[in-house]
Amino acid sequence: LETSESKITGYFAKMSNLNPIDFPIGIGDDMAQMCFGGLDTALITTDMLLDGTHFDLSIHTLEQVGYKSMAESLSDCAAMATIPFAAVVAVALPKGFGSDQLKEIHKGLLKSGDMFGCKLIGGDITTWGDQRAKLAVNVTVLSKPAATPPIRRSTAKAGDIVCVTGTLGGSIQGKHISFIPRVKEALEIARIASPTAMMDISDGLSTDLTHLTRLSNVGAIIDEALIPISEAAANTRFPLMAALNDGEDFELLFTLSEENFHKLCDNWRMDTPVTSIGRITGKKVLIRYNDGSLKDLLPRGYDHLRNEL
Amino acid sequence: LETSESKITGYFAKMSNLNPIDFPIGIGDDMAQMCFGGLDTALITTDMLLDGTHFDLSIHTLEQVGYKSMAESLSDCAAMATIPFAAVVAVALPKGFGSDQLKEIHKGLLKSGDMFGCKLIGGDITTWGDQRAKLAVNVTVLSKPAATPPIRRSTAKAGDIVCVTGTLGGSIQGKHISFIPRVKEALEIARIASPTAMMDISDGLSTDLTHLTRLSNVGAIIDEALIPISEAAANTRFPLMAALNDGEDFELLFTLSEENFHKLCDNWRMDTPVTSIGRITGKKVLIRYNDGSLKDLLPRGYDHLRNEL
Repeated sequence: LETSESKITGYFAKMSNLNPIDFPIGIGDDMAQMCFGGLDTALITTDMLLDGTHFDLSIHTLEQVGYKSMAESLSDCAAMATIPFAAVVAVALPKGFGSDQLKEIHKGLLKSGDMFGCKLIGGDITTWGDQRAKLAVNVTVLSKPAATPPIRRSTAKAGDIVCVTGTLGGSIQGKHISFIPRVKEALEIARIASPTAMMDISDGLSTDLTHLTRLSNVGAIIDEALIPISEAAANTRFPLMAALNDGEDFELLFTLSEENFHKLCDNWRMDTPVTSIGRITGKKVLIRYNDGSLKDLLPRGYDHLRNEL
Repeated sequence: LETSESKITGYFAKMSNLNPIDFPIGIGDDMAQMCFGGLDTALITTDMLLDGTHFDLSIHTLEQVGYKSMAESLSDCAAMATIPFAAVVAVALPKGFGSDQLKEIHKGLLKSGDMFGCKLIGGDITTWGDQRAKLAVNVTVLSKPAATPPIRRSTAKAGDIVCVTGTLGGSIQGKHISFIPRVKEALEIARIASPTAMMDISDGLSTDLTHLTRLSNVGAIIDEALIPISEAAANTRFPLMAALNDGEDFELLFTLSEENFHKLCDNWRMDTPVTSIGRITGKKVLIRYNDGSLKDLLPRGYDHLRNEL
């Protein structure tokens, strides 16, 4: 069931040979964690966004591109329930782009960064030599742990409830470019309910739940009837498939004990819905369809090495 | 004399509005500096390298590309006399690239990182949708201050001696892809001789000396006779022009008091030569030619918004 992306990530993780005192969290999670010798610790994530893959300049404005480029990294900060505080950006400009285009990208970067107090502190500007080359924007964000330690992908426990925030699927119709990263929701979930594992859904629920369970060495059963299908997905031909596989939902996927799940339900005051969709159990990732059948949940979302969104 | 790049960098710096307690060094230097609330501080740099601009996959191996991508950011750590310790990388792969190509890039990244104990702790892999799109590699490196505070570009003083390490020009003939970042030299210069300002020469001496003096609100006079011209540049049609403008030398440009310059000469034991090329003085950047004439040194190196290496 391993995708080519998870195989190569595993290879890099094995090669990296990190000292766990300096680097408690390394390759394979939403962010890497560093200690600085003193008491302080920070986390880091980097994301490359490409014209034609993550955005489309024939549809989207440069301000939207800047907004999404920062928001995608902020979603990684949310994924670990950490507080974003600084970002650097590097842009590869197509021929003919100059300071006017940069200012639009910059406006978008500030718009998403400012929502969570994440400051843009540096960058790099370069231009493609090739006449036909397209815009690439790379954002790196640093975050700090909140009151709780960073929440990892690899620590889900048998018996846990599996939850998601918001609704899933159909993001390509608009949400993928304008979503609000779930930073505040993540911090509130961590504060109320001590989740055992968490990540953001960027590659599609089927693929990301496969990542989370594999890294945690557990399985899961989710219920078709419980999946919160977005309005955008409901209007497509296969709403359930859209919710399971579309990707770029930028919602949170997390696991927690049954007791903490009830605590969360009792104390949740935010507008964003939280839904339980199943349970951590066994070794396989399964879905119970409404007709009662139980089938393998195949990771049919985005594979970063195959570009088959 | 301002290039379009320095204008836009100035614009971003003005817009960024950073709190100097949390961010002592912001946009416009080789690295930005962050404090973490406790006692620890770290610096960060990000660099995007593009096929056809910074390397050429019809000539260079993927291992060389990985090596240079990391080395370029390590050179920024050297530029401020700081100690690199962690890196994240993002790659935008052309169609058809897979885990074999990634492993070659990874090998090169580790090769330059390992020279200075800089660990690769995370990354992002994505693939262009466009059939003709080219490889982009983005490396972000974090460093820590050494025994001395980070050395900035903006603090050169009137009367200082202007120095460079190594020799300049003709880097495109090979050095640009295989250079050793001057991390050790920078730390030794900082330890012995308290330089007042420092940066690495990536855009060409003429352009980078213009940056340094403008940010320091001073001028400089350098001497044609003192410029250390590389063997590679000596074999070109205009060796002096190559040394002044070619760029990608990845040598150090620094300023220091006359007293500290003598201290440096007396105590320098490393193989890399250090050469004084002139003095900080006045408001303009001038070059004294061997015929005795004194002319403006025009910034004719690399402009990141124009791609005219």
